[in-house]
Amino acid sequence: MKILSGVQSSGRLHLGNYFGAIRQFVQLQEKGDAFYFIANLHSLTSVQDPKLLREYTLEAAVAYLALGLDPDRATLFRQSDVPEHSELFWILGSQIPLSHLERAHSYKDKIQKGLKPNFGLFSYPVLMAADILLYAADLVPVGKDQRQHVEFARDWAISFNQLYCPGYDPADPNGEKNGKPGIFRVPDALIQPEMATLLGVDGQKMSKSYNNTIDLFAPDKVIQKAIMGIKTDSAGIADPKPTEGSAVYCLLKALAPVEEMAKWTESFERGGEGYGVYKKRLLELFHETFDPARARREELLKDPGEVERILAKGAAKAREVASAQMDTVKRAVGLK
Amino acid sequence: MKILSGVQSSGRLHLGNYFGAIRQFVQLQEKGDAFYFIANLHSLTSVQDPKLLREYTLEAAVAYLALGLDPDRATLFRQSDVPEHSELFWILGSQIPLSHLERAHSYKDKIQKGLKPNFGLFSYPVLMAADILLYAADLVPVGKDQRQHVEFARDWAISFNQLYCPGYDPADPNGEKNGKPGIFRVPDALIQPEMATLLGVDGQKMSKSYNNTIDLFAPDKVIQKAIMGIKTDSAGIADPKPTEGSAVYCLLKALAPVEEMAKWTESFERGGEGYGVYKKRLLELFHETFDPARARREELLKDPGEVERILAKGAAKAREVASAQMDTVKRAVGLK
Repeated sequence: MKILSGVQSSGRLHLGNYFGAIRQFVQLQEKGDAFYFIANLHSLTSVQDPKLLREYTLEAAVAYLALGLDPDRATLFRQSDVPEHSELFWILGSQIPLSHLERAHSYKDKIQKGLKPNFGLFSYPVLMAADILLYAADLVPVGKDQRQHVEFARDWAISFNQLYCPGYDPADPNGEKNGKPGIFRVPDALIQPEMATLLGVDGQKMSKSYNNTIDLFAPDKVIQKAIMGIKTDSAGIADPKPTEGSAVYCLLKALAPVEEMAKWTESFERGGEGYGVYKKRLLELFHETFDPARARREELLKDPGEVERILAKGAAKAREVASAQMDTVKRAVGLK
Repeated sequence: MKILSGVQSSGRLHLGNYFGAIRQFVQLQEKGDAFYFIANLHSLTSVQDPKLLREYTLEAAVAYLALGLDPDRATLFRQSDVPEHSELFWILGSQIPLSHLERAHSYKDKIQKGLKPNFGLFSYPVLMAADILLYAADLVPVGKDQRQHVEFARDWAISFNQLYCPGYDPADPNGEKNGKPGIFRVPDALIQPEMATLLGVDGQKMSKSYNNTIDLFAPDKVIQKAIMGIKTDSAGIADPKPTEGSAVYCLLKALAPVEEMAKWTESFERGGEGYGVYKKRLLELFHETFDPARARREELLKDPGEVERILAKGAAKAREVASAQMDTVKRAVGLK
């Protein structure tokens, strides 16, 4: 099974990112042939500072490697190192009705949020479809907001197969019922299960835009200040404490092993321990969980040459797959 | 001086194509470093039959070579053999306001003529700008209908230079007044002079859509039938004959040397020779002018391997320039 996902980093990663996506990515590398690319071509639509884009790219690679992505198992590469993404972007795009893009939710949302209507944002789903179809991915793990983009990739793959593969049956899109498979594998989205929303230090949903995050790779002191400063209610030590809506409880639940968590739940419900006790344990759990990754990250940051070698090796491996696919595509459409 | 032009063939070439564009292209190869590419990526927006696209591509290469394009002087290549065109297409596109494309005349015209609004047609000017900027072309010979596309390429080159080249002065776009040149050379359009319209065998403008063409590479018998069948008025041998609106006169003028033409003009005005005489000479002139090219074409068609070698050599030469430019671009935007 082939799994494909793009990683777009815009700097600091926090606990919400980890439990919402990164952890699943890392786990998925065990399930099949995983291709993970740092989507720096996509990032160009929002990052116009070259220094920042380079930093973000390195940060994303380092973070994923530190958090357990194994470059001998999964293929990790920079999107821009594989020109076939852009080549397929044009070829695929040449056959796409403009109306599909005009009804893309994610584009409309971005424009509504005040982003300038720009060709890059508008074309985004086409490049994303090229990313997916280039590797004949079976499974594309995405958030709910990206579901339509995977639907587009499916639709466009099917239309392309119909246009260029005589005898292709769209009712058997991947030739699994004795039909003929097309040039493009029609992918499935793996919609990431809605995580119980992780709460930030102020009790709202953890999000960079609320400035209430606990960052994975912040210095120890910043982590300590953030965790010890989590907003709580005024319940006294002896009082039972609410679990619903409690950031401390929510974060403990994300980090503590199941058996340990049972004890904390009991303690919250019964009362008798103060928030300080919980927070202290939360801080320990944070370090127990992330210190190995934090240390690996420091090492990797000291050796950008090694990260570069990993990305170059990944790009070479990705290009093997991508260039074979492009050769097939070019022959099919008459460019070769 | 660098000259760039894309050649889009849709099959048969006729005298109107030759005098309207091909002749100038061939002459321009003497004026500088010419890059001519067969725009097969652009063709995908209108040709969905792979066999036909391959035929058109080969036909275009063979025709230009037969008509005098010298592959040791000009660089002739297939657009799809140089992935940098597609790479720059995305990178450039990521910064372009959608409104520019929405006001593109050529797109609006095509939609009005009944073509389906499709992403390929819509994006066409972006790929064309990438084609131009990739080779730092100084001069882009185009027909009047493409003037806006070269304007777009200029505008986008200037905006990109402003965004990514600190100290760039848009008032001195190519750094010719002590300013700093940008990453992209800002090109000039060379609008091809309006040819006196060439008339077809029925006396209307020669055009494939009127089915009145004299094709450059049709068999001898077809040429003879076309030329001897050119529509004339009913003037008798002794009568003076009109030159205005006369297809025979118009075609003689295109093909005969200036001194010879003076005699024919006199003959038309004075009378005394029949249309048969003129047509016979026209047929001779056609063969005198095009037989060497027709013979070269036959030879090349017998040796598609040789054409392939020429195109491969051209692609390698083009990629040297294109990949150096893309390296600069990628570093500038932070992809490298």
